[in-house]
Amino acid sequence: MSGILVVGSVALDSVKTTAGKSVEALGGSATYFSLSASYFADVALVGVVGEDFPREHKRALERRGVDLDGLKTVKGKTFRWSGKYGKDASNAETLATHLNVFKEFKPVLSDAQRRIPVVFLANIDPELQSEVLAQMKGPKLVACDTMNYWIESKPAAIKKLLSKVDIFFSNDQEAMRLTGAPNGLQAAEVLADWGPSVVVIKKGEHGALMKVGSKFYVYPAYPLARIKDPTGAGDTFAGGFLGYLASTGVHDDVAHLKRAMAYGTTMASFNVQDFSTKNIEALERDLIDERFHEFADGLQIPRAESLAKSRRAVPA
Amino acid sequence: MSGILVVGSVALDSVKTTAGKSVEALGGSATYFSLSASYFADVALVGVVGEDFPREHKRALERRGVDLDGLKTVKGKTFRWSGKYGKDASNAETLATHLNVFKEFKPVLSDAQRRIPVVFLANIDPELQSEVLAQMKGPKLVACDTMNYWIESKPAAIKKLLSKVDIFFSNDQEAMRLTGAPNGLQAAEVLADWGPSVVVIKKGEHGALMKVGSKFYVYPAYPLARIKDPTGAGDTFAGGFLGYLASTGVHDDVAHLKRAMAYGTTMASFNVQDFSTKNIEALERDLIDERFHEFADGLQIPRAESLAKSRRAVPA
Repeated sequence: MSGILVVGSVALDSVKTTAGKSVEALGGSATYFSLSASYFADVALVGVVGEDFPREHKRALERRGVDLDGLKTVKGKTFRWSGKYGKDASNAETLATHLNVFKEFKPVLSDAQRRIPVVFLANIDPELQSEVLAQMKGPKLVACDTMNYWIESKPAAIKKLLSKVDIFFSNDQEAMRLTGAPNGLQAAEVLADWGPSVVVIKKGEHGALMKVGSKFYVYPAYPLARIKDPTGAGDTFAGGFLGYLASTGVHDDVAHLKRAMAYGTTMASFNVQDFSTKNIEALERDLIDERFHEFADGLQIPRAESLAKSRRAVPA
Repeated sequence: MSGILVVGSVALDSVKTTAGKSVEALGGSATYFSLSASYFADVALVGVVGEDFPREHKRALERRGVDLDGLKTVKGKTFRWSGKYGKDASNAETLATHLNVFKEFKPVLSDAQRRIPVVFLANIDPELQSEVLAQMKGPKLVACDTMNYWIESKPAAIKKLLSKVDIFFSNDQEAMRLTGAPNGLQAAEVLADWGPSVVVIKKGEHGALMKVGSKFYVYPAYPLARIKDPTGAGDTFAGGFLGYLASTGVHDDVAHLKRAMAYGTTMASFNVQDFSTKNIEALERDLIDERFHEFADGLQIPRAESLAKSRRAVPA
C-alpha cells in the first residue's frame, strides 16, 4: 500500500456530550486521521507526547499498523483538550486547552518520512505546516486543514500555505471566517483561487461539499439519528478521504474524488457513534465498504424509464 | 396528466434580501406550489384573494395552466406578508403579516375538486386542513405542510391531521419544535409514528431528508453559491415532489420517491435564483430535467472497478 505522512496533534481529550462523557481519552488531529487512514494505506505519524502519555494509547495506534517512529516522547505533559457539546453537535464549547509539550513542537522529518508520497498537514501553526512541507521531497499529494485559532492569529500564513497545497479541508464556519464569504460555496470559490485544486468544506451533520475545477459536489452526512461524540469527525473524514486516494494512487480524477468524499463521510459516521477513537480503532474494511455502498445507494437517484411528458403551457 | 388539488394561501409578498427587494409581488404557499407542480401535472388551486389582487398575477397562474375555479375573489384586501433575510438565507424575519380576506377563508370544494386524486394541504389552520380533507372523495395521495404559528397554537390539531395524511412536509426547525426531538432525523421518526408513511424534512440550504419505512434518504440542496430570494422554496419543493409523483401515478415506491426528492430539490433551486415567482413562472420542462440529471449525476458515487484491498491490522 502507498503511504501517508501526517503531522499534527496527539492529545488527551475530556469530552462531555448529551450521551455521556469521556475523560483523558485518546484524541488529537493526527490520531483521528491516522486511525481512519489506516484502513486504506500505510500511515506514518509525526507528533509529540509527554511522558504521561498512556502506553495503551500508543498500542491502539500500533495495532492499526500506524508507524510511530515520528511520535516523540518528551519531558512534560501531553497536550490536553476538554470541551462539551450541547444539543447542537456541530459546535464544541472548549472548556480548556493545555498545549503542554505541543507548545515546543518543531518536527524534523527523517529521510524516509520526507519521501512519503502523500502528506496531510493537520491543524497546527500554519508556519509550522509550511516548514514541514518544505522538508518533503517531491510529494505527489499535499493536503492540509486549519482551525479558528490560526485563522484569527495567522491568516496570511494560511494563505501562503494554501498556495502550495493540492487539497484544503476546512469546516464551513472556519472557511467563511477565513474568506469573509457568506456561505460555504462562495468560501470554496475564494479558497480555490488561493491555490488548492480541490477544496473540501465540512459541514458536520449537514455533510460536506467539494469544489473541483468549476464544479461543486455536495453530499449529506451518513444519516445517524443518534450520535455520541462528534470530536475528531473532521480529521477522521480527512483520513478516509486521503487514505482512499493514497490507496489508489489517483489523486485528480473526479470519480476517485467522489469516492474519497464518500469514504470520508463513512469513516466520520463510524467515529461519531462512540466516544473518542473507540469505534475507529476496531473497524473492519468490510464494514466500512458495506456502509460506503449503503451511502452511495441512498444517494443514487434512479433514472426514470420514461420521464413524464413535458407539460405544455396553456397559450396565453 | 393526473391532477393535484392544492389548498392554501395566495398572497402579496414584500421581501428584502441581501440581493435586493420585491414589493407586493406574487406569493403564498398555494401559489408557489401550483406553479412548481404545473410542470408535471394538472393543478387546481383553492384559495382566496381580495379585490385588489392584480389581474397580472392571476394571468401568471393561468399561463401555467393552473385551474383557478377555486380561487375566490372577495371584498377586502389580499393577504400580505413582508419579511427580510440576512446573510443566513434559511430564516426569514417576518416584518408584518396581514391576513385580511384570508382570515375568513373556509374552502368548500366543488364536486369536481373533491374527486381530484392527489391533494396538498398547504400551511393553513390545521383544523381547516382536516375539514378540507373530509370533503375529498377517496383521494389516492394526501400530503400536507404546516408552520410555526400552528405548531405553537394548535399542535393537537396537527397531530390529528397527520394520522390521516400519507406525506408530511416540514422544515427541520418546525419538525423539532413540533416533536421536541433534537434533530431532523429523530423528528422524522416521531412524525412517522403519528401516521404519515413518508416524512420529508426540509433543511433549506442544507437540503432535505426523507423517511420511508425504517430508512432515511438524505440529499443536499442543489449547489448555488448565490441566491436572490428563498421565499417559497419549501412550497416549490413540495410542488416538484408531488407534481412528479402525481404525473407517474406511483406514490409508494422508493425509486419514485427518490426522484420526487430530486425534482423537489431542482424546482426549489430554480425558485431561489430570482425574486418572488419570477423564475418558476417561466421555466421549460427540458431545463428542469437537465438540472435534475445534473443533480443526480453529482450525487452518483461511481463504483470502484476494484476496491483497494483490505488493510490487515498488524498482529497486536
